[in-house]
Amino acid sequence: MGRPSTTCSTRKNPNLMRTTLDFLLYDWLNVENLTECERYAEHSRETFDSVLDTSARIARERFAPFNRLVDLEEPQFDGERVHLPRETGEAVAAYAQAGLLAAGHDYGHGGMQLPYVIDMAANSFFAMASIGLSAYGMLTYANCNLLLAHGTQAQIRAFASPEMEGRFFGTMCLSEPQAGSSLGDIQTRALPDAGAYEADPLGPRYRIFGSKMWISGGEHDLSENIVHLVLAKVPGADGAMRAGVKGISLFAVPRELVDGDGRCTGRRNDIALAGLNHKLGYRGTVNTLLNFGEGRFPVGGEEGTDTGNGAIGYLIGKQGEGLKYMFHMMNEARINVGMGASMLAYAGYLASLDYAQNRPQGRPYGRAGKDPSIAPVPIIQHADVKRMLLAQKTYAEGGLALGLYCARLVDLKNTGGPRERADAERLLQVLTPIAKSWPSEWGLEANNLAIQVLGGAGYTRDFPVEQYWRDNRLNMIHEGTHGIQGLDLLGRKVAADSGADFKLLVERIEATIVAARSHTELSDFGLALEQSLIDLTEATTAALTDVSAEVGLANATLYLQGFGHTVMAWIWLDIAAAAITCAKQDGSRDSDFYQGKLQAARYFFRYELPKVEAWLRPCVTHDDTCLRMQETWF
Amino acid sequence: MGRPSTTCSTRKNPNLMRTTLDFLLYDWLNVENLTECERYAEHSRETFDSVLDTSARIARERFAPFNRLVDLEEPQFDGERVHLPRETGEAVAAYAQAGLLAAGHDYGHGGMQLPYVIDMAANSFFAMASIGLSAYGMLTYANCNLLLAHGTQAQIRAFASPEMEGRFFGTMCLSEPQAGSSLGDIQTRALPDAGAYEADPLGPRYRIFGSKMWISGGEHDLSENIVHLVLAKVPGADGAMRAGVKGISLFAVPRELVDGDGRCTGRRNDIALAGLNHKLGYRGTVNTLLNFGEGRFPVGGEEGTDTGNGAIGYLIGKQGEGLKYMFHMMNEARINVGMGASMLAYAGYLASLDYAQNRPQGRPYGRAGKDPSIAPVPIIQHADVKRMLLAQKTYAEGGLALGLYCARLVDLKNTGGPRERADAERLLQVLTPIAKSWPSEWGLEANNLAIQVLGGAGYTRDFPVEQYWRDNRLNMIHEGTHGIQGLDLLGRKVAADSGADFKLLVERIEATIVAARSHTELSDFGLALEQSLIDLTEATTAALTDVSAEVGLANATLYLQGFGHTVMAWIWLDIAAAAITCAKQDGSRDSDFYQGKLQAARYFFRYELPKVEAWLRPCVTHDDTCLRMQETWF
Repeated sequence: MGRPSTTCSTRKNPNLMRTTLDFLLYDWLNVENLTECERYAEHSRETFDSVLDTSARIARERFAPFNRLVDLEEPQFDGERVHLPRETGEAVAAYAQAGLLAAGHDYGHGGMQLPYVIDMAANSFFAMASIGLSAYGMLTYANCNLLLAHGTQAQIRAFASPEMEGRFFGTMCLSEPQAGSSLGDIQTRALPDAGAYEADPLGPRYRIFGSKMWISGGEHDLSENIVHLVLAKVPGADGAMRAGVKGISLFAVPRELVDGDGRCTGRRNDIALAGLNHKLGYRGTVNTLLNFGEGRFPVGGEEGTDTGNGAIGYLIGKQGEGLKYMFHMMNEARINVGMGASMLAYAGYLASLDYAQNRPQGRPYGRAGKDPSIAPVPIIQHADVKRMLLAQKTYAEGGLALGLYCARLVDLKNTGGPRERADAERLLQVLTPIAKSWPSEWGLEANNLAIQVLGGAGYTRDFPVEQYWRDNRLNMIHEGTHGIQGLDLLGRKVAADSGADFKLLVERIEATIVAARSHTELSDFGLALEQSLIDLTEATTAALTDVSAEVGLANATLYLQGFGHTVMAWIWLDIAAAAITCAKQDGSRDSDFYQGKLQAARYFFRYELPKVEAWLRPCVTHDDTCLRMQETWF
Repeated sequence: MGRPSTTCSTRKNPNLMRTTLDFLLYDWLNVENLTECERYAEHSRETFDSVLDTSARIARERFAPFNRLVDLEEPQFDGERVHLPRETGEAVAAYAQAGLLAAGHDYGHGGMQLPYVIDMAANSFFAMASIGLSAYGMLTYANCNLLLAHGTQAQIRAFASPEMEGRFFGTMCLSEPQAGSSLGDIQTRALPDAGAYEADPLGPRYRIFGSKMWISGGEHDLSENIVHLVLAKVPGADGAMRAGVKGISLFAVPRELVDGDGRCTGRRNDIALAGLNHKLGYRGTVNTLLNFGEGRFPVGGEEGTDTGNGAIGYLIGKQGEGLKYMFHMMNEARINVGMGASMLAYAGYLASLDYAQNRPQGRPYGRAGKDPSIAPVPIIQHADVKRMLLAQKTYAEGGLALGLYCARLVDLKNTGGPRERADAERLLQVLTPIAKSWPSEWGLEANNLAIQVLGGAGYTRDFPVEQYWRDNRLNMIHEGTHGIQGLDLLGRKVAADSGADFKLLVERIEATIVAARSHTELSDFGLALEQSLIDLTEATTAALTDVSAEVGLANATLYLQGFGHTVMAWIWLDIAAAAITCAKQDGSRDSDFYQGKLQAARYFFRYELPKVEAWLRPCVTHDDTCLRMQETWF
């Protein structure tokens, strides 16, 4: 990880989250180093801070105040159009106007050319303020990123540029009603558009037919247009579609047809909203079932050369490469999902911290505690409330740190030297499933604890914590379920290349353990982490060798949990070491802040890390209890 | 626990829950034995079954179909009255008409004189069908129970009898806005009603002033009247109220004044609805803030002897004994809360099992799994889905078993021989916090897993699992929070009488371990449980000796978790032994059913029990990380 810079950031910001964010960025990850590379040479801590300040302000003014509103007034479909609260439009407009839809993109595209880690830090404010409102920008950004990476110049001009300007929004259309986790089973078809296949400047033109499920931002009036990126299959000469993921291609399918400069033509594409999903949470984001090419909005060929059947879509890149392109985007989207989960955890942490500081109830132990005539104390003085707050702190701040660390790896992958790039790529392989799954699981638990701190009040809609909990429940499901993350980690990422990526991660963790030895306060933690690393390595070997894949992968979710907590212990050990170093440099200044980081690390090592062994045991013993359970026994 | 009867119950019922319920009642707990005692001599398996059949039918017809409705149409207050869906009234009327409000009460009171364990089994159907609709009956039953135990004959005639008939409903009024967990701090006052203090046949008459928060069923038109049981303090001669819990008395405060025969007089008591709580879940039950004696509905003295200030209330039992009476009821209420949590877990288990059996997605591992041209399989064939279903099964069925076991202890306490009574009382002391907290925590996790099995579908309101999860979230909060249960268990119950109650529980667990040794399939489990018992004993000793109460109790919630999983392992070991015995007697009949119990036990021992050590470690080491955390460090 980054070496702490020689002068530690001063912790003056009254916003607890911002203070921690600054510490993680500047002291822990030392992101100012990034300005030494050419791409970010024009940036400085000042420009980074300016983006963070602007983001914090817009999030505070335009997102946070309406988070409950967009939960209560969930999207409505009247058969013609989708109704969203006015404030949704104002929030996303403010986000776009600040240039945040192009924050990381090239100057040449009108972007700010910010490092990904700063972009992610900026977005953390929006996720914390209102995850539902923040999704439109996130989706559009990811969509645009993919177009920039794999689209033609014409496609970039027509679709991506309007997205960076905030005129068009974007979606990702992967799932179908019958195909969620199993994308190889999608049935959406793309047929070459006979008359116009080659003539269209926007690329090979196809007609798309099929239904796409769980499409966030799939229909709304927030932008001039919506660019759907759609996975579909092109049938072979025999009319049959290739089974499995290898037959999947990617298409840009605009809600309204555009000309080569990204101007809307006024001609509606054949994309019909079949219905909205009414969700447990995350209601600020409209979620849809879309029918492509059902004939509701027929589009004739420009020169009358075709039948007008099907939605018009343009092939992105090469046929059959669709899933690869999508996963280019998906990997960053998964880190983003984890970041969203961490920020929901942070929001709940701060809300419950505030409540605990202000709610009097009960008395401390000891003689005074037996005297009912003395005044009650704020509940933050009770050990069990502190436990619930400390747990939330480790989940929220630890998740934030892991997300930022991964984002910085993305920057290294994009701008580092050859060795740095290769290493970053390897580390991201094994860390992405953790960056997605760990905050999704433990951020949810953080929100659960936030409700518990508030007690009955937390169970009402008078306080925000119940909404955070509902909102956060999505994160273990979308962008690859928890179970899929486990299989991806153990069956694919850790197994790949004879475990070379995993080995590199272990080396990095060991380097942190070695470095932490210079701090006597941390010696126990280093030993404990060493042991978890041994357990994890043993579980990895056990799962991948001397046993069928069926048995080895049967406990992949438990492996994911054990792996995740081990990674998080590493993160906390490294944060603790950085805090000690900063504390020494700062003298008495901010000592509370650093003590908090140390105590959080202590909590994690003593209360959380011991769980690793329990999770990994079934992996080590090849336990087949679940695998052998029969359907008739339930 | 009960010895399996010589012929095991045949498992023919297509209702999975009922089949397990029958097994637990008749084969595991051998509740038919209860008919040997005088109080239940007129009962038989047939009368028990008849109550269960009736309950199952009413729950299926009048409760389950409206569970979503009462969630969507939550209670509304128009300033005058509370509006509930019509179906709420029909459900509670059907419950009352079946005599279930008096199921356990004496024949002499018009009751069915059923054992408590059968009563609880009957109510499990309602909790599973709609926890929100079931609460009215539960509350009234508990209220009535308390009146029968501590009220005068006149009070029973005026308040309890109409409750048994279903004409009056009841509430429990403990919390106040400033006093939730800390009941010693309640401020509601009760002043002797000067002119009528002794004249009223319903008992010493008081005027009540104060606000009561979180009152379920506090206001509605479902019944002729509502009998509030209110905790309040009677000021001393100096006008001051005694601080702490010792000054608390209990009063019956009817919404409408009644005559000595429980007939409403048409005179409204001074109880005003100050507002409804808008909850995350459990919306079928109206939850209120009530103001007593605020002057909105002044009631003059019957003979004009008083000022008309205050709500009229009647002292129950003796002054200063209020909390003791309330806890008489509260202990059974806590077992009921746990049972409700288990039944919500069961509901989610069955819903996700059904989904998993019918949703095709993905392919098994192995060669066939690599062939996308073959048809997908139902997701129940995937090991990770089986894991999530098995976990739910152990949480739901284990929680149900623990609740029934405790209910049977209540029956033993009430009707057993002297030794049995004393032992049952001791065991209930230590098991009640577990019976309340364990299903509340793990039933919620079961619902979390149910959502996960359904994936995106589980996150929508098109399926019931998200509601179960929201509904279940209340159970860790009401009737004593999780933290309070931990303190109660470790600081009070386990510590009491030099640990005699805990010691008795350990003996019972060891007896199960010894008995299970005759089954070779269970030998590993016995050893594992023995080890957890050693760990638990060590943690108990560590917390209660050689350390201040402040440090010893700082990790009481973790102790509660470790204790809970140990108890549950004991329950599952005993269930597994009963299943093996039954399977031998039954031959090949129902072997799937018994295999399921064995596999669930196996899951619990291999995947769940190993967590105990991680939870107990901070207790053993006197870890003070949470205790020493400073407010300024957060």
